[in-house]
Amino acid sequence: MKALWRVANRKPGMLSLGTGDPHFSLFPMKKVQFEVASASSDLDDPVATWTDAGSDAPTQWFSSSRDEPGSTPFRAAMAYGTGAGLPEAQRAVTELTKHYHAPRDHVCTLTIGNMDGVSKLFRLLGSPGDHFLADEFSFNALTNAPLAHGISWVPVRIDQGGLIPADLERVMSAWDESVHGRRPHVLYTVPSGQNPTGCTLSPQRRKQIYELCQRFDILIIEDDPYYYLQYVDDEASSQPAPSFLSMDLDGRVLRVDNFSKVMMPGMRLGWVTSSDLFHQHLIYLNESSTQHPHGFGQIFITEMLSASGWGLAGFDRWTRSLRKEYQRRRDVFLAHFAREVASTGFARADAPPAGMFVWVDVHVQRHPRFRTDLRDAEGCPPRSNVPELMDELFERCLDAGVVVMPASIFATPASPGAAKLLGGDDSIQNRIHFLRTTFAGEEAQMQPALHILGQVLRDFFTELK
Amino acid sequence: MKALWRVANRKPGMLSLGTGDPHFSLFPMKKVQFEVASASSDLDDPVATWTDAGSDAPTQWFSSSRDEPGSTPFRAAMAYGTGAGLPEAQRAVTELTKHYHAPRDHVCTLTIGNMDGVSKLFRLLGSPGDHFLADEFSFNALTNAPLAHGISWVPVRIDQGGLIPADLERVMSAWDESVHGRRPHVLYTVPSGQNPTGCTLSPQRRKQIYELCQRFDILIIEDDPYYYLQYVDDEASSQPAPSFLSMDLDGRVLRVDNFSKVMMPGMRLGWVTSSDLFHQHLIYLNESSTQHPHGFGQIFITEMLSASGWGLAGFDRWTRSLRKEYQRRRDVFLAHFAREVASTGFARADAPPAGMFVWVDVHVQRHPRFRTDLRDAEGCPPRSNVPELMDELFERCLDAGVVVMPASIFATPASPGAAKLLGGDDSIQNRIHFLRTTFAGEEAQMQPALHILGQVLRDFFTELK
Repeated sequence: MKALWRVANRKPGMLSLGTGDPHFSLFPMKKVQFEVASASSDLDDPVATWTDAGSDAPTQWFSSSRDEPGSTPFRAAMAYGTGAGLPEAQRAVTELTKHYHAPRDHVCTLTIGNMDGVSKLFRLLGSPGDHFLADEFSFNALTNAPLAHGISWVPVRIDQGGLIPADLERVMSAWDESVHGRRPHVLYTVPSGQNPTGCTLSPQRRKQIYELCQRFDILIIEDDPYYYLQYVDDEASSQPAPSFLSMDLDGRVLRVDNFSKVMMPGMRLGWVTSSDLFHQHLIYLNESSTQHPHGFGQIFITEMLSASGWGLAGFDRWTRSLRKEYQRRRDVFLAHFAREVASTGFARADAPPAGMFVWVDVHVQRHPRFRTDLRDAEGCPPRSNVPELMDELFERCLDAGVVVMPASIFATPASPGAAKLLGGDDSIQNRIHFLRTTFAGEEAQMQPALHILGQVLRDFFTELK
Repeated sequence: MKALWRVANRKPGMLSLGTGDPHFSLFPMKKVQFEVASASSDLDDPVATWTDAGSDAPTQWFSSSRDEPGSTPFRAAMAYGTGAGLPEAQRAVTELTKHYHAPRDHVCTLTIGNMDGVSKLFRLLGSPGDHFLADEFSFNALTNAPLAHGISWVPVRIDQGGLIPADLERVMSAWDESVHGRRPHVLYTVPSGQNPTGCTLSPQRRKQIYELCQRFDILIIEDDPYYYLQYVDDEASSQPAPSFLSMDLDGRVLRVDNFSKVMMPGMRLGWVTSSDLFHQHLIYLNESSTQHPHGFGQIFITEMLSASGWGLAGFDRWTRSLRKEYQRRRDVFLAHFAREVASTGFARADAPPAGMFVWVDVHVQRHPRFRTDLRDAEGCPPRSNVPELMDELFERCLDAGVVVMPASIFATPASPGAAKLLGGDDSIQNRIHFLRTTFAGEEAQMQPALHILGQVLRDFFTELK
C-alpha cells in the first residue's frame, strides 16, 4: 500500500480519494508543550541547578503548535506517518549520531525505545533455529525476547573488562555447523556500563571484537544506553570509548540508542542506526507492528534538539552534567560499600567505569557450607552449591529488608548445544556468585541498605557449621 | 525479573539497591500540557465550534506536573512501568469500555495503537501453520502482519452487510483437519465501517456470528476503530450496534480500541479488552517487545478522561459531534458521487453506515473488452480479466490526476489450501471490481475528484472496441 502511495504521488497536484486518514481539521489539539530543565549555556552544571533549586529551578519550554510555525510540523506529527518516523525527528537524531559517532553511510530509524529497537533487530536478523552471541550475563528481559521466536543464545565469557575477545574467538573457532547448527551471525552486546555487570569495553577490546566480527562475519547489535554515563578521571581530557558504530566499515554494526537513562524512561523514544539495507527492513517491520512512533515523543525530541530547544549543545551540557552527578553518586555508594560491605571480607566490588550498576562479587567459596562435589544424578559431573548458597543469601537479604538482584536471573540462557561447547552445562552456575546493586536509587538509602547487606553477609558467613 | 520484584516488595519499608531505573529527581521535565478543543457541556456541537471558529475556538488544557497533584502520577508516567500500562490510564480506558460495552469479566491492557494491539493478538493466538479467518477484503497492512509468523488466512465472503454468517458456517463445516491442517480458531473482523468496504454488521448478524464462533470454538478479534462513527438516521433514538465484546459470555472476544480516528493517529495509544488470561499474556508480550506505553500518551488519555479534562461525558459529546460531522461529509460526498459517477451508469455505491470509506462497485462486466474465458495455462479453469481491466482503470485514474485505492490490494491473501475450500484460487479475482474512496479527506477536492473519476469511467467504458 505504501508502494502504491509512492506511485500515486508521482505527479504534483493529484486529487486524493485514497487516504484513510482522519481529516486534520478534526484533530482536537492545538498545542503540546513541555516545561523542562534549562540547559542554557549560562549554567555550568545544569543538573546540579535542577536538583538543588527544586521548584524554583530555571526552566524552558519545548512546544509545537497547530497555528504557529516551529521545528516540528505539528500536523504531520499528529497524523499517520511512515515506519521510519517523522523526517524532522529522524534528522534530529541523525545530527546527534553524527556528532558523537560520525558513522559512515548509516541511517537512523526511530523506535519506541530500547526494548523495541533491540527486539525488532532480533526478529529481523534471526530465524528459528539460529544462535546469537551475547555476554554471559545480560539484561534478562532482552535475552528472553527472542526465545519465543526460536533463537538460542551462545553466551561468551566476560571478565572485569567485559566480553573477552579470546573467548569469542574460541567459541567461533570451535563451532561446527554439522554438530551445532548454523554458525552464530549476530553478537548482542552492551559495550559501556553493561547491565548487570557495569563492565565497559576498552577501546583495545572493541577493536579486537570488531576485527573478530569481520573475520567470522558477525553482525553487532550495539546496545549502548549508558554511552553518556562513561565516568572520567579528568573531565578535560577524557573521551568516551569509541562506539562500534564509529569504527564500522562494513555496515555490520546496528546501534541502538535511546533517551531513557539520560532523560526519562517514560519517553519511549529511541532509534537504531544501521546500514540502509537494514533501515529499509526495519521500516517494513515497524509498519507491520508498531507503525510510526508516537507524535508526542517525536515532537519532544525534535524540539529538544532544535535551536529553540536545548539544541545539541544543550543536550551535551545536560548529559555531561548528568554524568558528573551519577559519578558523584557512584563514589558515595562505593565509599559506603567499602565501609559497610567490603570490610567484612566476604564481598568486593570494582568501581564501574560507566552506567548505574555495581556488581558485587560474593566470596561464596569461603562459606562454611560451600561444596564442589554435588552430583544431581549418578554419572553426572560434580557441581558446586553456588546456586543454593546464593539463593539463600538473597532470601536473607529480603528478610533483613534490602532488595538486591541475584546474578542468576541475568545468566544468559545457553542452548544445550552451545552449553557443551562452552565447557559443561553448569559452568555459568559456578559463576553466579554476584549481586547487582545500583547507585541510581535513593541516595539516603545507600548507607542503611549497604549496612544491612554487610550485616547479612557477616551472619551468613559466620554461622555455625 | 518482574516476578522477583513482586517477591521483593512483599513487605513494606524495604530498602532497594535493586532497581535499574534512573533517579526521578534527574528527569529533566516539570510539566507536560496539551491545549485541546473544548468539549464543554456549554457547546451543542463541539466539533462544529472547533472547525468554524479556527484559532479563536475555545480550548481547555490537559496537563500533568511534577510539582502539582493531578489525575496522573507524573513521576510514574515518566518512569519505567509494567506492560499493562499505568494503572490510572488503565482505569480510564476501563471506565470508558464499561460505559460503551459493559463487558463481563474483561480487563484492559494498554497498547501503542491499533496495529500494535492487533499484531500482538495475532502473535499471541497463532502458531506457525495456523489458519485465521478474516473478511475477504481487509486492511492489507494488518492482514500482512502475521504472514511472517507463518499464519495463513482463510477469507470469508462478504456482502453489503459485511461478513456472511452462512459462509463462515460453510467454511468451518467443510474444514477437514486431515487435509487442511488445524481448524481455524481465530476470526479477525472489523464490525463497523470496515476498511475498505465500509460494511457494518447488523445486530442480527453479530449474534449469528457470535453463535457460530461458540459452536466452532473460535476466538474473535474485534477491531473496531470506527465504533464511534456509526451514522444514524435519527439522533435521538439510534444506538450503535452492540459490539461483540458486549455480547461475550465466554471470554472469546478480544476487542481492540484506539483514539486514532476520533482524536489523532499520532497519539499511538490504544487498548485491548480481553479475558484476564489473555491480559496476562499480553503483558508478557509487551514486556518482551515494546515495554509499557509512552508516558506522554498515558498522561494525555488519563487527563482527558478525568474530571479536570473532558471526562467521559465530554468524550461522548466530542465523538457524537464528530460522527455528525463525518455523516455530513459522507452525505456531501454521496451527493457529488450520484451526480458525477453513478450517473455514468458504470459504477455505483451504497451509503456506508459507518466509518470513512465508500466502496465503489465498478460495472466492469459491461466493459467492451470484458472476458470470462481466459486460461493462464492449458488445463487451467477459465478466469475473467477483471484484474487486468481494474489495473488499467486505476492507471487511468492516476493519469487523469485522481488517487483511488484498487480493491486488489485489500484482497485477504488466502492460503492455497483455504483457496480451494473457498471455491477456486481465483475466485476473489472476479470480485475485485471495486475502488475504495473516502470522504475523510479535503472536502474541496470531493467534487473535482469525483468529476474526474466519472470522466475516466466514461472514457474507459465507451472506448472503441
